[in-house]
Amino acid sequence: MPEKLLDRIQNPQDLRLLPEDRLPQLAQELRDFIIDVVSVKEGHLGASLGVVELTLALHYVFDTPNDLLVWDVGHQAYGHKILTGRKDVFHTNRQLGGISGFPKRSESPYDTFGVGHSSTAISAALGMAIASKLKGDDQKHHIAVVGDASIASGMAFEGLNHAGVTDANLLVILNDNAIGIDPSVGALKNYLTAVKQGKNPKQNNMIKSLNFDYSGPVDGHDLFAVIAELRRLQKVKGPKFLHLITTKGKGLQQAEENQVKYHAPGKFDKITGELVPKSEENLPPRFQDVFGLTLLDLAHHNDKIIGITPAMPSGSSLKFMMDAMPDRALDVGIAEQHAVTLAAGMATQGMVVFCNIYSTFLQRAYDQVIHDVALQDLPVVFCLDRAGLVGEDGATHHGVFDLAYLRCIPNMIIYAPLDEIGLRNIMYTAQLGLEHPIAIRYPRGRGVTIDWQRPYEKIEIGKARCLKPGTKVAVLSTGAVGNNVVAALSELQNPDTVAHYDFGFVKPLDQSLLREIFERFEMVFTLEDGVIKGGFGSAVAEFATENRHTTPLKMLGVADSFTEHGTVEQLQQHHHFDVKSLVKIFSSY
Amino acid sequence: MPEKLLDRIQNPQDLRLLPEDRLPQLAQELRDFIIDVVSVKEGHLGASLGVVELTLALHYVFDTPNDLLVWDVGHQAYGHKILTGRKDVFHTNRQLGGISGFPKRSESPYDTFGVGHSSTAISAALGMAIASKLKGDDQKHHIAVVGDASIASGMAFEGLNHAGVTDANLLVILNDNAIGIDPSVGALKNYLTAVKQGKNPKQNNMIKSLNFDYSGPVDGHDLFAVIAELRRLQKVKGPKFLHLITTKGKGLQQAEENQVKYHAPGKFDKITGELVPKSEENLPPRFQDVFGLTLLDLAHHNDKIIGITPAMPSGSSLKFMMDAMPDRALDVGIAEQHAVTLAAGMATQGMVVFCNIYSTFLQRAYDQVIHDVALQDLPVVFCLDRAGLVGEDGATHHGVFDLAYLRCIPNMIIYAPLDEIGLRNIMYTAQLGLEHPIAIRYPRGRGVTIDWQRPYEKIEIGKARCLKPGTKVAVLSTGAVGNNVVAALSELQNPDTVAHYDFGFVKPLDQSLLREIFERFEMVFTLEDGVIKGGFGSAVAEFATENRHTTPLKMLGVADSFTEHGTVEQLQQHHHFDVKSLVKIFSSY
Repeated sequence: MPEKLLDRIQNPQDLRLLPEDRLPQLAQELRDFIIDVVSVKEGHLGASLGVVELTLALHYVFDTPNDLLVWDVGHQAYGHKILTGRKDVFHTNRQLGGISGFPKRSESPYDTFGVGHSSTAISAALGMAIASKLKGDDQKHHIAVVGDASIASGMAFEGLNHAGVTDANLLVILNDNAIGIDPSVGALKNYLTAVKQGKNPKQNNMIKSLNFDYSGPVDGHDLFAVIAELRRLQKVKGPKFLHLITTKGKGLQQAEENQVKYHAPGKFDKITGELVPKSEENLPPRFQDVFGLTLLDLAHHNDKIIGITPAMPSGSSLKFMMDAMPDRALDVGIAEQHAVTLAAGMATQGMVVFCNIYSTFLQRAYDQVIHDVALQDLPVVFCLDRAGLVGEDGATHHGVFDLAYLRCIPNMIIYAPLDEIGLRNIMYTAQLGLEHPIAIRYPRGRGVTIDWQRPYEKIEIGKARCLKPGTKVAVLSTGAVGNNVVAALSELQNPDTVAHYDFGFVKPLDQSLLREIFERFEMVFTLEDGVIKGGFGSAVAEFATENRHTTPLKMLGVADSFTEHGTVEQLQQHHHFDVKSLVKIFSSY
Repeated sequence: MPEKLLDRIQNPQDLRLLPEDRLPQLAQELRDFIIDVVSVKEGHLGASLGVVELTLALHYVFDTPNDLLVWDVGHQAYGHKILTGRKDVFHTNRQLGGISGFPKRSESPYDTFGVGHSSTAISAALGMAIASKLKGDDQKHHIAVVGDASIASGMAFEGLNHAGVTDANLLVILNDNAIGIDPSVGALKNYLTAVKQGKNPKQNNMIKSLNFDYSGPVDGHDLFAVIAELRRLQKVKGPKFLHLITTKGKGLQQAEENQVKYHAPGKFDKITGELVPKSEENLPPRFQDVFGLTLLDLAHHNDKIIGITPAMPSGSSLKFMMDAMPDRALDVGIAEQHAVTLAAGMATQGMVVFCNIYSTFLQRAYDQVIHDVALQDLPVVFCLDRAGLVGEDGATHHGVFDLAYLRCIPNMIIYAPLDEIGLRNIMYTAQLGLEHPIAIRYPRGRGVTIDWQRPYEKIEIGKARCLKPGTKVAVLSTGAVGNNVVAALSELQNPDTVAHYDFGFVKPLDQSLLREIFERFEMVFTLEDGVIKGGFGSAVAEFATENRHTTPLKMLGVADSFTEHGTVEQLQQHHHFDVKSLVKIFSSY
């Protein structure tokens, strides 16, 4: 077996020593290596396969890490990681203690900027470019590689709009593969497609109207063409824009043909691409499917219901409704701000809008929640998927701040269901007509209930409930993490001492039950799958303070530090609220 | 004196009965009326003068309120309010109990959407238009009037990008006056200016590339031309875009010539436009000027300092540095998300970036604060002007959520200075080099210290201080609202019982001093100019809870409801933390 070129590349300096005609072989090896590892270790696949040539070309032409390269979004960056000293640890990708699935500053000097959320790269790279100029460095290059779904976000436009009036040494590369996780949408995408098809020959060029030097479209898999164009652009001063056409999943037939499925496919056969089947028999449903199927069901009976997702039709399972009722279920692209205010506008006209946004991404529309929804007290129904610790996606993706940042907003109702039934029933309740906006938060992954499609029941707003009585200690949990308490209590030697309450509503709090609890028990615990500071525990502490209850209160949840990647259980363990930790804590009572 | 036409117009129905040739007279009367009232009662002037003809034309041509009209931003809407039944109460504009300075749903059916923050109108109107379609109404018109500074915000782009692929009955009118509060910036603005000057005849038309039916530019002060164009567009289905050229301050020479000053000029002579001079002698400085002058001074000595403002050069007083060091102080337009991530990018290159954003507008960049700054622990210095209750601008503008939404973010330092000296010294401290990001929040208006330009002193991070000893009760205040406590204590009959502590740092908390306070006193108060839920008081409650302190704690601050407009003192009174209320509370100890 001949020695592999890839084995000789410890870093981009090694790469630059190769003659250009060896690069296609290296591209093939890099692609094979990514497939080899991801087929077994799982992770994001399609995006990185699509930029193999671009990754090689960038590190070959530019003087990284002196020249500064920002990936947007970060799941394109596997090839980049492998070429920049992390080949030998690439198999630890997304594992606890291993490398991150996204570029991360603390991991490598080649990772100039952390990029888990999309559309940040132009702003970040422009900031670097302006800083370089101020430091007197006119030679340094600053490159933002932007996925085309990312460019549709308003933030990317803001970056372009500013960059266009600077003389910053900025190269924006649009990696145009017409898909984010799901296919891209919007007028800009249609425009880009027209350009690609030669239909819109330089006229109405939106990028030019923002004062960029536009070049392209260039075939992003033609390595020599990409290298030649990068070399040309290297000599152009000021803001430049390269439009590159790539295919997501390039090099693995199945991944090219099923781009949504192969975005992050789980384990698969590295030759055939065949997915390794998972046994899903007798597993409880995923929360996202409970959302998607319930919404569709409710929408059949209530014609005021509209569904909105910013670019997560598959991830949110809004797909079910989009397929069945395309007029009433909308994917607006990576545009969280727009999604929320669009929902507010619809709500003014009496529609019941379910706006589904991952918890971590609702951060991108915080002002719209406050200013457009809550201030006007419009009854928009926010469904926050991936709330709490999300596992392998790590620090950029944990949905742990929502309880804290939503709780301070007047008029908001906040509910976290314990299980699938709770999610289903609160959705049913919400579409009956609420007088306020509501945020329903639920976690990534599966629930606990196989037969979840039971008849709907209306939930009383603001009401908590006792799941298990007890004599000495009360545990107040909110959301699905309460199942950890259920499991822990079942393992206790002396379970009679510990009572368990399910506080689905973080706001409004069930004050009368709280009063009773603080009066009756010797010790109160709160538990939430979110940051303690400002969250549910904090709300209970405020209540106890205001009402001069002196019963000791201990708040369990996510500590005041960013949480890395790992399995959800490992991360819960880190924050001492996995089942085992809870057993230990409760055992002393 | 002949009867005025304006006196006959109680609502747009009356307006529509007028023959078209009477409208110029009505325009003049409307303009005069706005000038008459605003010259005495104060408020926003220039923006509404610029849209007098447009306002008349819109209500004349369209069937408001059945057709839905959204203003963006809301301070253009004085003429709209006057024509829609609020002429007789217009003199109560921005006063406690009076009408709001911005459109407000609860005020009138003609105010279809609340608009205090910019760039929301396209999304909101599109939401209404989609809802109309779903309800089977194909005739209703949905109109967003967008100021050109507002269109540069990413959110507006997101709205356009979505609208362009719908068949929604949406008319976007760009009110292009080349200025927001300060002159507009960015590549799009340059592009619009070129279009206006006929330099870019339909080529590279950005709006067309987003699939809009583009028309214009039209002279926005040619009433008949505007009416004719609106009538034409009324018959065009699908998304439409009208580019209108107007002059901010139109009709008052001084306001046209000094557009920044006459945005909201205070009292002025309605004939000459001459501003009524305010005696500023011997007044303490405005906090914004302390920021602006201190930053310029520090920047002279530290060449790593950069200043950023999203569209508030005057309001933030970054203007001082922009004038003196244009390379190092940047206005990026209404683009808060970009501003924050740009700052993060600069910080990676070792720059000390002061990113000045009004507290209420930082909500628009919340994710960027978390994901791009705090997660990477980049020492960006956020200066949050207009924190706390801001007065007459009302519910959309109060900066009352920042303590709550920032406190839950790991790595953040949060500081609220008691006075000018504190602001000056924390800025000095921050540029010496911190290891974490910091948010410095300070209020609108003036401080308390005439001779504020004293030698710099370094502030110890996380340290609180005792301002006044006491025997029974401890009052812990954060920020300039602590001066209310100082004033209240000076009025107490028995001031010896009450101690006063200045907790400049909301995070990290001075835990050792807190411990001492909870051990020593019989009662603890917290006071903040922000929402109690999740804020400073909540942090102290969490501390007390965690440490099992049972000393009673009472949290003072903004209650859990949106606060309307009024003077700051009136609003403090509403929330029971004006000086008089505090005297009453403390007197009982």
